[in-house]
Amino acid sequence: MTDLDFNAVAKQFTEFYYSQFDKDRSQLASLYRDTSMLTFQETQIQGSKGIIEKLVSLPFRKVSHTVTTLDAQPDTRGGVLVLVTGALMVDEEQNPLQYTQVFNLFNEGQSFFVQNDIFKLISL
Amino acid sequence: MTDLDFNAVAKQFTEFYYSQFDKDRSQLASLYRDTSMLTFQETQIQGSKGIIEKLVSLPFRKVSHTVTTLDAQPDTRGGVLVLVTGALMVDEEQNPLQYTQVFNLFNEGQSFFVQNDIFKLISL
Repeated sequence: MTDLDFNAVAKQFTEFYYSQFDKDRSQLASLYRDTSMLTFQETQIQGSKGIIEKLVSLPFRKVSHTVTTLDAQPDTRGGVLVLVTGALMVDEEQNPLQYTQVFNLFNEGQSFFVQNDIFKLISL
Repeated sequence: MTDLDFNAVAKQFTEFYYSQFDKDRSQLASLYRDTSMLTFQETQIQGSKGIIEKLVSLPFRKVSHTVTTLDAQPDTRGGVLVLVTGALMVDEEQNPLQYTQVFNLFNEGQSFFVQNDIFKLISL
C-alpha cells in the first residue's frame, strides 16, 4: 500500500470527469496529455487533441452517466488505476446503456492526468 | 505508440490466465508479485500468496470464462493495460454471469506480471 489516498483520488477524478462530460465534454482536454490513449468501443486514439475531437463527435447531444461501481488501486509508481461500471442515458433514449471504463491515472506532482482510458459498452 | 506489441501481449496473457484459472487456479501465483493487488468484488488483497488463497477459496469448483471483448493499451513505461468483458459459468449454474476485469501488466525484462487486477461482476 502507499500513503496516497487512491480511493479519494479516484472518487474525485470520476466525479469531475463524468460531471464535466455530461455538461460539456469539449472541456475535458486538461485531463489528457500527448501520450494519452483512448479506446472508445473499437476506436483507438492517441493525444489530447484527437481524444477530445472524438468525444465531441459522438452522435448524441444530451448524455448522463451514472456510476454503479467504482474501484481503485495504486500502482507502485504513484499512479492510480480506476475501474468503473455504470449506465448512461443519451438524448431521448429510454433505456440506459451499461458500460465499463478504466482510467489509468499518472501523477504529475500533486495532480493526475489520464494516461490510459478504455470505454466499452456491455452487450447483454 | 511503442514498438511493444501490446495487443499480442494482452491476448497471450489473457488466454493463459483464463485457461489456467479454469483448469487449476491454485497455479496462478507466478503471475503475481508481493506488490500485486487484487480487488475481487468488494475484497482487496495485496501480495501473490494472499491473492491465490482468495482465488482458491472462491465457492465454486467448476468455472469457465468466455472473453467477449479484449482491449489493450501500452502505458509509457513498458506496461500494458488490459480490459476484458466476458461471461463466466460456475458449477451447474445455467445462467452465465457477466463480468469486467482489468489487468495492469508491468514488465520485468521480457516478461510481464500483474501489478493490478480488478474483477467485478456486472449487476444488470
